[in-house]
Amino acid sequence: MQSEKEIEEYLKKNLKANRFEHSLGVKRTAVLLAKQYKVDERKANLAGLIHDCAKSLSDKEIIDLVTAEGLKISKVCFKSPQIMHGLAGSIVARNVFKVKDEEILNAVTYHTTGRKNMTTLEKIIFLADFIEPGRNFFGVETLRALAYKDLERALFLALNNTINYVITKGELLHLDTVRARNDIILKNNF
Amino acid sequence: MQSEKEIEEYLKKNLKANRFEHSLGVKRTAVLLAKQYKVDERKANLAGLIHDCAKSLSDKEIIDLVTAEGLKISKVCFKSPQIMHGLAGSIVARNVFKVKDEEILNAVTYHTTGRKNMTTLEKIIFLADFIEPGRNFFGVETLRALAYKDLERALFLALNNTINYVITKGELLHLDTVRARNDIILKNNF
Repeated sequence: MQSEKEIEEYLKKNLKANRFEHSLGVKRTAVLLAKQYKVDERKANLAGLIHDCAKSLSDKEIIDLVTAEGLKISKVCFKSPQIMHGLAGSIVARNVFKVKDEEILNAVTYHTTGRKNMTTLEKIIFLADFIEPGRNFFGVETLRALAYKDLERALFLALNNTINYVITKGELLHLDTVRARNDIILKNNF
Repeated sequence: MQSEKEIEEYLKKNLKANRFEHSLGVKRTAVLLAKQYKVDERKANLAGLIHDCAKSLSDKEIIDLVTAEGLKISKVCFKSPQIMHGLAGSIVARNVFKVKDEEILNAVTYHTTGRKNMTTLEKIIFLADFIEPGRNFFGVETLRALAYKDLERALFLALNNTINYVITKGELLHLDTVRARNDIILKNNF
């Protein structure tokens, strides 16, 4: 695997400055959450750092990258390829950074959509992406405080937020996001 | 099949007064929409009248009814059986009213959740349920006017409304509703 320094160099070269700053914010926030929820901090650190590594790819580049791996693309993802920037990021992580840890790769893959049966690391990266210090939206302070107290409830609110955002923007909603939210409700009896 | 009069007698006996009034409103609105979109008005009339025929059943009654038909119940529907009141309604329609027309039965089944590849009749019943004269919510006038001009756009707004409502209430969201909305976006290039 590449060193963290090498990975940071790649990110600096391939991401816009504010996206790179965001990545560092998610990395640090993910480590804090990992401490809190007793998850491997090194995994959280790396997954947070690299989660957006494919964020600057064009729609066509994302489709080509996913297709080259032999993966099928749904109609929803084909129309809105940016929904797959997590998946594309996990492909870059595997092929360029030589990350082999499936837990880390899954946390990158599902950091935007979520999915049913998320691992704690996946939940942490999803939430860290929402609440890192650079984020600024209505309710972010509440979500920040809640994330360290009640991971499930914070994830539930974050998923609600994602769905509201997608509906308001008139965009396609990935079914995995709804599956993630239903799963949280069912398992926690919310 | 039972006569419309017999069916109305059943509904009067089994639904609360305001729910019965709502059913008449949906019936009339469905016929107007059917005229507009050149769909069989008798089918729209009947589907509109009976769409909520299982609405007063308890959670247990709905689960028992669906189970007795040998149908599998998902975790989401098991936790929120009222999501299945359309399906339960189609079972009542088949078993009690002796309705055999699959188009009508499907319009009843999917009137709350929607689904991918909805027929025009299904869209009409879904929308009539939203905009019948007794309905009163923010934006209903806009939706009423739009329903007669642009069925697809009106359905899109109604589905957005359904999803927002479910998210705000913290309830489980049926995947078919999201599939219906994604399908509308993809097919109309919204």
